[in-house]
Amino acid sequence: MKNEVLRFLREQEEYLSGEEISRRLGISRTAVWKQINTLKKEGYEIASQTRIGYRLISVPDRLYPEEIQKQLRTNLVGRNMIYRERVDSTNILARQTGETGFVDGTVILAEEQTAGKGRLGRVWHSPMGTGINMSLLLRPAIPVSDAAKITLLTGAAVARGLEEITGLKIGIKWPNDLQIQGKKVSGILTEIKADMDQIHYLIVGIGINVNEQDFPEELRETATSLHMEVGRQVSRIETAAVVLNHWEEIYQRFLTQGFTVVREEWKQYAVTLGKEVHVRTINETIHGQALDIDEDGLLLVQDEDHQIHRIMAGDVTLRT
Amino acid sequence: MKNEVLRFLREQEEYLSGEEISRRLGISRTAVWKQINTLKKEGYEIASQTRIGYRLISVPDRLYPEEIQKQLRTNLVGRNMIYRERVDSTNILARQTGETGFVDGTVILAEEQTAGKGRLGRVWHSPMGTGINMSLLLRPAIPVSDAAKITLLTGAAVARGLEEITGLKIGIKWPNDLQIQGKKVSGILTEIKADMDQIHYLIVGIGINVNEQDFPEELRETATSLHMEVGRQVSRIETAAVVLNHWEEIYQRFLTQGFTVVREEWKQYAVTLGKEVHVRTINETIHGQALDIDEDGLLLVQDEDHQIHRIMAGDVTLRT
Repeated sequence: MKNEVLRFLREQEEYLSGEEISRRLGISRTAVWKQINTLKKEGYEIASQTRIGYRLISVPDRLYPEEIQKQLRTNLVGRNMIYRERVDSTNILARQTGETGFVDGTVILAEEQTAGKGRLGRVWHSPMGTGINMSLLLRPAIPVSDAAKITLLTGAAVARGLEEITGLKIGIKWPNDLQIQGKKVSGILTEIKADMDQIHYLIVGIGINVNEQDFPEELRETATSLHMEVGRQVSRIETAAVVLNHWEEIYQRFLTQGFTVVREEWKQYAVTLGKEVHVRTINETIHGQALDIDEDGLLLVQDEDHQIHRIMAGDVTLRT
Repeated sequence: MKNEVLRFLREQEEYLSGEEISRRLGISRTAVWKQINTLKKEGYEIASQTRIGYRLISVPDRLYPEEIQKQLRTNLVGRNMIYRERVDSTNILARQTGETGFVDGTVILAEEQTAGKGRLGRVWHSPMGTGINMSLLLRPAIPVSDAAKITLLTGAAVARGLEEITGLKIGIKWPNDLQIQGKKVSGILTEIKADMDQIHYLIVGIGINVNEQDFPEELRETATSLHMEVGRQVSRIETAAVVLNHWEEIYQRFLTQGFTVVREEWKQYAVTLGKEVHVRTINETIHGQALDIDEDGLLLVQDEDHQIHRIMAGDVTLRT
């Protein structure tokens, strides 16, 4: 009901009378007034004039599903959304949702995470109302070994989205760190639940620093936000929608045409390739030159003995 | 306390007085009597004679952890065990345990599964007290892409164990069907929870038909049990212990020496290789000759056009 009231207000440039809304929805004037109050509590600015009616002045920069969905051009992703003010992490909520049954392409959004995590268990800073914390919950018919490609694909989609929003050059450090001038602005954490035949569900967690104006001491040197880079507030709603639109476009291309096209797109953003790197893997540390990513999304690093290592997972530092 | 009483009874060839047990454990005679009754209820046959004491006559063929652990030579697997009379499935319980924290190498056992599953969601028949239903819960420091190798490794371990127990030839149909003369006697279902950097947990579900004497109509042509093949009752306790001992031995070899040795061992049991096969994968059906498994555990099938397909997951039927 609330969303219908909101829709009427949007469609109307001028004041819309409470009587008109009440008539169109077949509800009482009091019920209309209650819905208006709910919207105001959610941060919608609504002017009201006695005997004239209501008018929508502004929309809050909250990650409300209906606001993001208005800007989506997707068929799969984000058609179903779950929104929370605060969660431990959107990936954890996605896991719980994944265990109990879900609509393919469900997107989980939160204003704040109390236990947001990046790769390798690292803390992801996500205070109230400043960043985008979202998880995509998917059921793709791809082998387990393809899951890593989804991380790269997501990196390319987010990079493209953030370039569109900010006009700035975005770089990707393999596999999934998005940077602006060497500082981290977004991270991706892909999780799977699978057996050897099929993926039960796949979660793509995306964290984007949008309107942060400062970071805790220990992150100040390495992290940045869109606001800090462009010097103004950035709409989180628009950013989330743009990223999701690009995501679905690249994802569909991956499913229909395979990884090659995605790989080419990813490489346009790569800051790692051609560079001297240290790579810490589960078993060893490799020093060498990052050559390329291969057809499976693995990083190829050539060490001093000209041996080429195919790296599935690891932590990359650029040698300076 | 119950296990201490049991241990005393085991150590004693002759009757052991209630007074002696009571003294050694520092508990009352009534408490001893209660523990003896608990053991009897669990199926232990214990003779008691007034003024002489208690004597252990026989041990029930239940998958009691303490009985299996007596026969284990492992350092990792089965040092911690969870036992249930009845579960939906040991893999489901393993998942729940995996989410909440667990000891690496935990083994979950159940007498009966009400919702046992094989690969591709197929029902796994597991009535009360006849088969072995167990799940190994592990936290290996291996990449996600290595998980499929654990399935093959487990196949080799179970094959070796069942050959030791029965003296019969065991065959493996890629990837994980264990057969005696073409009839299925055991199946393996490997599940993982992971992100791209690390496996959060890995579950190896093992189902073995041990003392079944008949199967439902729809399975009669394709399934068999150890009992049906050797014509006598087989100890489930011993079978479980022997399988776990072989499992750990091969697993440690895999972790230290890599997949090559496991692959060679697996191939000794392979009934698929060299044969004409149909393979149904997620995307297509391939007809051809199964050539080999490669260094990643993938099945190599050469089709009529001499093209070689590397198959990660699929359902294999031998052409007859």
